[in-house]
Amino acid sequence: MKMCDIAVYGLGVMGSSLAKNMISHGYTVAAYSKSGTERQRFSAEGHNDTVCSTAEEMVASLKSPRCIFLMITAGKPVDMVLEELAPLLQPGDVVMDGGNSYYKDTQRRLAWCEERGICYLGVGVSGGERGALEGPSMMAGGSLEGWEKAGGILQTIAAHAEGIPCCAYIAPGGAGHFVKMVHNGMEYAILQLIAESYHYMRFGLELSRDETLRCFEQWKREGLDSYLIDISITVLKKMDEDGSPLVEKILDVAEQKGTGKWTLLESIEREVYIPTIYEAVSARNFSRKKKLRSQGCRQLYSSGKPARLEQAPETLGNALLLGIILSYSQGMELIVKASEMEQWNIDTAVLADVWRDGCIIRSRLLGEIRQAEISSERPLLLDEIFSYIKELEPALRIVNESAVEAGIALPGLASALHYYDYYRMEQMPVNFIQALRDCFGAHTYRRKDMEGVFHTKWETDERI
Amino acid sequence: MKMCDIAVYGLGVMGSSLAKNMISHGYTVAAYSKSGTERQRFSAEGHNDTVCSTAEEMVASLKSPRCIFLMITAGKPVDMVLEELAPLLQPGDVVMDGGNSYYKDTQRRLAWCEERGICYLGVGVSGGERGALEGPSMMAGGSLEGWEKAGGILQTIAAHAEGIPCCAYIAPGGAGHFVKMVHNGMEYAILQLIAESYHYMRFGLELSRDETLRCFEQWKREGLDSYLIDISITVLKKMDEDGSPLVEKILDVAEQKGTGKWTLLESIEREVYIPTIYEAVSARNFSRKKKLRSQGCRQLYSSGKPARLEQAPETLGNALLLGIILSYSQGMELIVKASEMEQWNIDTAVLADVWRDGCIIRSRLLGEIRQAEISSERPLLLDEIFSYIKELEPALRIVNESAVEAGIALPGLASALHYYDYYRMEQMPVNFIQALRDCFGAHTYRRKDMEGVFHTKWETDERI
Repeated sequence: MKMCDIAVYGLGVMGSSLAKNMISHGYTVAAYSKSGTERQRFSAEGHNDTVCSTAEEMVASLKSPRCIFLMITAGKPVDMVLEELAPLLQPGDVVMDGGNSYYKDTQRRLAWCEERGICYLGVGVSGGERGALEGPSMMAGGSLEGWEKAGGILQTIAAHAEGIPCCAYIAPGGAGHFVKMVHNGMEYAILQLIAESYHYMRFGLELSRDETLRCFEQWKREGLDSYLIDISITVLKKMDEDGSPLVEKILDVAEQKGTGKWTLLESIEREVYIPTIYEAVSARNFSRKKKLRSQGCRQLYSSGKPARLEQAPETLGNALLLGIILSYSQGMELIVKASEMEQWNIDTAVLADVWRDGCIIRSRLLGEIRQAEISSERPLLLDEIFSYIKELEPALRIVNESAVEAGIALPGLASALHYYDYYRMEQMPVNFIQALRDCFGAHTYRRKDMEGVFHTKWETDERI
Repeated sequence: MKMCDIAVYGLGVMGSSLAKNMISHGYTVAAYSKSGTERQRFSAEGHNDTVCSTAEEMVASLKSPRCIFLMITAGKPVDMVLEELAPLLQPGDVVMDGGNSYYKDTQRRLAWCEERGICYLGVGVSGGERGALEGPSMMAGGSLEGWEKAGGILQTIAAHAEGIPCCAYIAPGGAGHFVKMVHNGMEYAILQLIAESYHYMRFGLELSRDETLRCFEQWKREGLDSYLIDISITVLKKMDEDGSPLVEKILDVAEQKGTGKWTLLESIEREVYIPTIYEAVSARNFSRKKKLRSQGCRQLYSSGKPARLEQAPETLGNALLLGIILSYSQGMELIVKASEMEQWNIDTAVLADVWRDGCIIRSRLLGEIRQAEISSERPLLLDEIFSYIKELEPALRIVNESAVEAGIALPGLASALHYYDYYRMEQMPVNFIQALRDCFGAHTYRRKDMEGVFHTKWETDERI
């Protein structure tokens, strides 16, 4: 057997697609899975001489330094496979984890591998099955030595945008999986905003399916050009067997998986305000209360009036575009904050490059975001690159007014506006909170007009 | 030295106030603090014969079974004091932790104490210095045996509402500290809603300080009777030395401490939607971006119009009242979910009793909430007890419309409305999200019209 360039461990949908992608780029691949079914399926797809029967055989068939790409279920299985592989490897070999691992697990595994001289990389992979096959977006973090050895293969098989590979080394530690996690958080937000726009057109403004579809097609041409708008059009076009729109037959109940929840937990730990991601993850959780929603729909009063929105297609499109920009801004804020706290020194322009193609949130916008200079002193929202925000702002405001008046909850779009308006609030109501806290708990306060920390005896001694 | 009924360990503001409260109720107290300064201060306040010089002396002066109430800084100090006390105690003795401990720490300490035969209670204490002195609200969780031995003292010194002590055994484990944590989360939410109402009157509608004060006084008479409205009036009345309202001199920058953050983390882990608490904790975090807010205020465009609100005092008061009801509903949902997951079997009517007086969120509303039958099948919002919600709903909607139009972010009040409207949405936009997720990631979906799990081939093979 000739010595292979790289091994792919795990031959599910994603693993086998990545292996095929590598092969199609001329790499020799040693493919292995614990699952005999997966090995057989991959063999049967014309890759008989690529599949190894054991992990030992897989490792033995690799050139040195050995590069192994794990594409297995996140969590415990990754630890088990590392335990299995470590005795077979030599110092300087490279192990990459392409699953949606929690970045703190990646950091723990990185330290474990470092003790054994193994170069470990946590690699976020986005793009689904087709992306894996034809060119995913990949975010690598961890061992720089490992990246120098294996990164070339990853960049070759990744998507490219204007010649730049949508795959890069982000930073040390768990930074690769961290930014993939936030990527998914932004994906949640954008999905929510799109779904709210659809819902408001279809069931608030009572546009027909055809009118709704035409809106999406118009938006695609006017600034909202992105993968998720493309597939929104695909979804709207799909008819069920009875000739009615399939999407309207789908139950409005969703699950949320690890990365959305982790993004929220991280934002709360790191005290970063990402309300649109909060609303997006929460909407999926709340959707499970289907029975209570039916009850509430009958029981709870609404003074809402029939929805009205002038120039609905254009206005909703502008509101959606601004909402998406503000979702990117929130996600970038979380990454910038984590990068500072963890001393990752992440270059957000590189993230924009990596996300420009191959991944789920790819969009024309990312080309603009690439030009922004984002830092903790300059959130994306305040970068001058988006000089046209002022043209979009009235739409976001009007859509929110309209939805509140109509009694239809669009918390994603509302939260985006709050995030925007918060940045416009030189004066927040927090002075009143500080006064109350000092009054009931002697928590002290600061003043606008002088330095220092103050406490006031607000009350007489009489108990209220 | 005569044998004492109870020991208080820690003589800061809260500990010394609780000790004085116990003494004033006729209990003999052994008081101790590691801090010589605290011991001396407490001695000098006329309690010379109450203060012990060492922990050994404190323990030795107690009747059996010994009851020791810790009122020390949460975190590591609690573990250190437990290590110190354990060798001095006998099986059946009772240790209570009255600090704002994280409930998971309490659960760990409970197990540690159980191994040693010590009865451990985590006791949430609310009411600040004055509450501690004159009658706090207390939420006990942990050892039922410990509660049976020491609970009588706690109930005696607690606040009482209509003869019922605002102190109860909530449930085993860390339930006492858990519900205190959520109490604080609701406190965050209510403070935020009050502060937003103040801010909108004063700086949106440009009412004078006197008009704003009169609104609060009117609200107090009309359904909003509560401690936090009382002290809002106190705060508004307080003038600075130059004769202008002191609150307007206070810097709008706040910190948030452990319990608010923990409440959010718990809600995310347990997938409970508490958006008003989210916005309240986030507002404090966001307030620290003072410099960026000043920049954004100059840079970001707003199409907002001057604020308008008809019958502002009454409308805002109704909106605030509904917002507060919905905040209680959110907090109760989190407690009910945790109670189910942890098998705590918490009776929410007991919580309403405990919170009716003594604590920061005490209000007339809690008397009504006491009558509600809250469960996972019946959130507070859907209990029929609040038959007057329909009279408040138009106000909350109009205030939100008005604020959105005026370009002033009131995310607390907005989130309360979204929470309400979500319960009215028989159909959420989540069907569209499910379609998109199935399209890009084969995540599958369910249907309204038939059982099962479905996947659709949405697209042609051509890459979009």
